[in-house]
Amino acid sequence: MSNDSEGKSGNRKPQILKGFRDYLPEHMRLRQQIIGKFRAVFESHGFEPLDTPVLEYLEVLTGKAGENEKLMYGFEDHGGRKIGLRYDLTVPLARVVAMHQAHIPLPFKRYHIAPVWRAEKPQRGRFREFWQCDADIAGAPSALADAEILAILGESLDAVGLPNYTIQVSHRQLLARVAVWAGIEEGLAGQVYRSVDKLAKIGPDAVVAEMVEGGVEQPAAAKALRLLVEASASDDALGFIRDSLGDDPVADTALAELQEIFEVLPSMGITGKAVFDPTLARGLDYYTGPVFEAVVEEPRIGSVAGGGRYEDLIGSFANRTITATGVSLGLERIIEVVREFDLLPGDGGSADVLVVTMPGAAAYAASVASQFRQAGFRTELSSQPNRSVGDQLKYGSKKGIRFAVIGGEAERESQQVALKDLESGEQRTMSVHEVIQSLQQAE
Amino acid sequence: MSNDSEGKSGNRKPQILKGFRDYLPEHMRLRQQIIGKFRAVFESHGFEPLDTPVLEYLEVLTGKAGENEKLMYGFEDHGGRKIGLRYDLTVPLARVVAMHQAHIPLPFKRYHIAPVWRAEKPQRGRFREFWQCDADIAGAPSALADAEILAILGESLDAVGLPNYTIQVSHRQLLARVAVWAGIEEGLAGQVYRSVDKLAKIGPDAVVAEMVEGGVEQPAAAKALRLLVEASASDDALGFIRDSLGDDPVADTALAELQEIFEVLPSMGITGKAVFDPTLARGLDYYTGPVFEAVVEEPRIGSVAGGGRYEDLIGSFANRTITATGVSLGLERIIEVVREFDLLPGDGGSADVLVVTMPGAAAYAASVASQFRQAGFRTELSSQPNRSVGDQLKYGSKKGIRFAVIGGEAERESQQVALKDLESGEQRTMSVHEVIQSLQQAE
Repeated sequence: MSNDSEGKSGNRKPQILKGFRDYLPEHMRLRQQIIGKFRAVFESHGFEPLDTPVLEYLEVLTGKAGENEKLMYGFEDHGGRKIGLRYDLTVPLARVVAMHQAHIPLPFKRYHIAPVWRAEKPQRGRFREFWQCDADIAGAPSALADAEILAILGESLDAVGLPNYTIQVSHRQLLARVAVWAGIEEGLAGQVYRSVDKLAKIGPDAVVAEMVEGGVEQPAAAKALRLLVEASASDDALGFIRDSLGDDPVADTALAELQEIFEVLPSMGITGKAVFDPTLARGLDYYTGPVFEAVVEEPRIGSVAGGGRYEDLIGSFANRTITATGVSLGLERIIEVVREFDLLPGDGGSADVLVVTMPGAAAYAASVASQFRQAGFRTELSSQPNRSVGDQLKYGSKKGIRFAVIGGEAERESQQVALKDLESGEQRTMSVHEVIQSLQQAE
Repeated sequence: MSNDSEGKSGNRKPQILKGFRDYLPEHMRLRQQIIGKFRAVFESHGFEPLDTPVLEYLEVLTGKAGENEKLMYGFEDHGGRKIGLRYDLTVPLARVVAMHQAHIPLPFKRYHIAPVWRAEKPQRGRFREFWQCDADIAGAPSALADAEILAILGESLDAVGLPNYTIQVSHRQLLARVAVWAGIEEGLAGQVYRSVDKLAKIGPDAVVAEMVEGGVEQPAAAKALRLLVEASASDDALGFIRDSLGDDPVADTALAELQEIFEVLPSMGITGKAVFDPTLARGLDYYTGPVFEAVVEEPRIGSVAGGGRYEDLIGSFANRTITATGVSLGLERIIEVVREFDLLPGDGGSADVLVVTMPGAAAYAASVASQFRQAGFRTELSSQPNRSVGDQLKYGSKKGIRFAVIGGEAERESQQVALKDLESGEQRTMSVHEVIQSLQQAE
């Protein structure tokens, strides 16, 4: 990051850090709309909201997520404590479950929608501050829990109108057993996950090369990858792998879990969207069971969400094993897609009605605005009583407000106002009551 | 803070920083309910949502808010940039308005609901991470804008059922002219504001003493304070000050602005709640016009919100004067009050219905749960298919879920389930459709 020179010049310049951005109103309304839809899905499944501090002890944050930790914002506070900004919402969940064991009945189904920070090299569509929408179940070892997470993922993507997504599903234990079957040492499983995870991005040769660089023997690396790719291409990938591995109790358990997940998904309303993809690995170190990722192929957007089962992360804080499974929806990517493809209806701008304020008639305008609000209309009272009516209307148009209401001293007595359609320019004078009725009918 | 020793011991202990806290589900639901009500008020007035990065350049944050800045969390990032966590939402607004002038039509009415950080000495009810709910109007010099902010403040407090609050209103220019009238140098106005602001907390003698310590002559300090206190006690405080100051154009303008505010407020639905209180000063440096504070006297809770007009803050970034006025609602204090006095109805817990999962009948349970969700019930599918029905019901009771639905293989054919009321213990067997109907009628 030494090539960044921003911030060294300038004096009280209104500047923003590279990799960060303001969420202006139009963007925020879309953001709130999408977050609202995710929340509705999560809550419909009985998931509960959780929030945690942005700042944590550095030692709480470290040792959990491999690569991502290097990108952590860490520093010393006034009291000399080493602290950091959270880089995901999973480690805080683990800490919370461990700290509040007495008050949290298990299984604990929680969602958490909040920003996280990673000092990544800024690039198009990649930010140093970004939001995650996570739903996790802690304390339920059943594959039914994984299936529910997958159902929630599908419902969430459906809720925002995302087209043509596929949820790829695999299993870390299966991948581990394929590696062992191919002759790779068990201790190198992490290297296998990280390399195979890049298959779609860098291709099979580079994946094998990376594994070799990480200490895997070339023939074993090639053999493992070949099986995964061949299984992928087969009509019955699960059967293909089962037959290839032969008698392997660990692999059989993993296969049975996947089978259970795929059997129950249709009853959860997920059909066809979720597929077994043996080449899916996920990069994060802490997954131990089923893993999954939602990708949009057409248009070619890539991954919009991912997750899986992690058995040891919560246990690293609590003094017992508490297995968990969950998904993280990448809000920024999803917003980008929704915006680019116009997947959700418009938000109606900042207000439905602008009440123009005439000199000496501010009180009348204020009371008219109150009446519109009581009738359920988002109503902006113009804050520019000293500007001309024309200027105030121009402001309304700029803001995309459809209707303006104009009433001066003369109209006060009769409780009349002029209603002006800022799109068509049409204007009629009526009582406040009639205007409200006509707008309600127009809705 | 050298007496804090937390954080120096411990190894992967699940610990949280002092002055920070987790927002567990029950608290979060109340929080979301309150934030939702504030948002509804803000949006009904045509205010638009804004969010900004948590991290800003240190030089953007400094030089704006006096005392509060000492409490800032500041550090160097990986690129050697001096950065900090925002300590309020007003400075970010000023930066945004200056940076995005071309895209933001003025007046800009925005709300911002988000956490801020201050390294204050932790104490009961005071946190280092806390949320503010701000509504501001930038670019509208009219007192009508101040009045609207006051109306929004009142409506927000009403929306969460806050009892017996008073909105105290005063004017910085009036206070400044009282100080000059009493013989205090104009340059010491800041000292006067900060000291008078503490009147309710420390009493008149201590206020005078503090002013004297800050360089004000004792007789002048006493004279200014006496006028403010006497005006406070009078039936016509505005008139009392006008008569005392005599011919003073600056004071007259301030008085006229206050008059205008109080004249329009009833048309905005605010009657009796807002009162002129000449002893109100507000501690922050940047206010330049009307200032206000909402206090709850009975029960004795104190300040729950405050704000005012600030003319120069946005101009310190933009190269022109953009006057603004706004209010900040203290979410933490308000939540505490709502919780303590049970001002809002219960939130209904995590789910309406728990669907018990019987061995071998997970798919049936999942499809029953889907049907309940489609009918609009928040429905938790039990993630413990391997636990007894009794254990699953116990979990439902612990979570405060009112109804459990139980269906095994035997019921699948007939689409029947048992509906159990976890409060009364009553249980009946019906079709899924009948259960949904009976729950809808019970609502």
